[in-house]
Amino acid sequence: MEGVEVLIFDIFGSTVDWYTTVCAELKNLGETKGPSGSENWHAFAQAEEWRSAYMRQTQAFAKAESDPLTTPNVDEIHRGALETMLASEQWSHIGQCWDKDARDNLNMVWHRLHGWPDATEGLYALKKDYIIAALSNGNARLLVDMAKNTDLPWDAVFAGDVIGSYKPNPKMYKTTAKLLGAPPEKCAMVATHLWDLEGAANSGLKTVYVHRDAKEPTEESTDVRTKAEGGEVDLVVKSFTELATVLKNSHST
Amino acid sequence: MEGVEVLIFDIFGSTVDWYTTVCAELKNLGETKGPSGSENWHAFAQAEEWRSAYMRQTQAFAKAESDPLTTPNVDEIHRGALETMLASEQWSHIGQCWDKDARDNLNMVWHRLHGWPDATEGLYALKKDYIIAALSNGNARLLVDMAKNTDLPWDAVFAGDVIGSYKPNPKMYKTTAKLLGAPPEKCAMVATHLWDLEGAANSGLKTVYVHRDAKEPTEESTDVRTKAEGGEVDLVVKSFTELATVLKNSHST
Repeated sequence: MEGVEVLIFDIFGSTVDWYTTVCAELKNLGETKGPSGSENWHAFAQAEEWRSAYMRQTQAFAKAESDPLTTPNVDEIHRGALETMLASEQWSHIGQCWDKDARDNLNMVWHRLHGWPDATEGLYALKKDYIIAALSNGNARLLVDMAKNTDLPWDAVFAGDVIGSYKPNPKMYKTTAKLLGAPPEKCAMVATHLWDLEGAANSGLKTVYVHRDAKEPTEESTDVRTKAEGGEVDLVVKSFTELATVLKNSHST
Repeated sequence: MEGVEVLIFDIFGSTVDWYTTVCAELKNLGETKGPSGSENWHAFAQAEEWRSAYMRQTQAFAKAESDPLTTPNVDEIHRGALETMLASEQWSHIGQCWDKDARDNLNMVWHRLHGWPDATEGLYALKKDYIIAALSNGNARLLVDMAKNTDLPWDAVFAGDVIGSYKPNPKMYKTTAKLLGAPPEKCAMVATHLWDLEGAANSGLKTVYVHRDAKEPTEESTDVRTKAEGGEVDLVVKSFTELATVLKNSHST
């Protein structure tokens, strides 16, 4: 990681624990508005449509090089997917309980996601020595709201609609590096998703895998290793605070 | 200013006192590297070439709708203008004293500008109730460096190279509002330059004139008035802290 001056962070899953926050709000809404009885909110959040629709649609946009200023933003993608789910055979019993206001409010949960316990402290520590920037497929307003809610002190926020593409399109990584005035090799992407780190590496950035103990079903291997160990990334850490410590120590040696 | 949820700030002159910072660094460099004897550093900074070249070139790019990712960024504009000046008849006696390192370092003064005394306190106060964003013709890295140096807690940073245009091109104001998820009438531009506020108003934004007691030669009228007084802007204030107080009071009445 020598020579790195810019750290670029993935958001969903890497910086914020979206899964726990979304499941908690779904459970709360179920208790308030119904339906009564137990529901598999984890499946609702992840497996079937809601999060998956976001992933599917942004990755399709990424491949097609669609312009996010003229394609649906992430709020609109989430809202559309929610409507589709609540009209489906599987979830229509829930759809009957939730009116427009409830749906509008629920859809904004993505602006209210909580950071992982180490995120705020780690980012403040890293901000002293590095430029720290967010790079997400989420839209800019969503990232700004989330940063205010959960105290993420970004130096800059880059989103699908800011850069005009979606990860893992190389435009996202290359343009972010250029805007931050650093060649790609002086930038490191920090994420818990290998597909994101692979995209960053293909654009010449260094890579930090952050191992999150997420309860979400995940596409990730639990056995991610550094290049020095024969693996695929430059560094593996368990938290942003560990990242701050590791980088500090590597400087002082 | 009712309904405003996003405040967008001009940087040079409005948030930071570039003139005092640049003149002080020029004077310091003169004392260190020469030339000995008195120089009119104020003229060097402003009147002849350096600041003027920036204004002239970015406004030309704004009219031509040039893409900042493929045109010189502000660092490059400043560096080129500095070379031209130091080779000119008027300033070549200074050029003889300053080597490449001195020029490189001096050119980065624009990344080290000091905020006006009220800027940091005012922005922290405003940040509690509003989204606060920077919108400058300066490049993104310059704005990030400046924010870190002088503690400007932006929620988001928008620059010529981020938006792909230069102020006062309407694209700058409209795209910033769109990215921040607010219709133009829910955004207010805060600046000490009437040409900038006029550009914002033409794109439907509200306008706040901040009256800065700058020692720089300025194109501004000292008699800017609100629309309620028959003038051209929505609000006139003397500082960001005053802006925070005025907005707070208008909410509580």
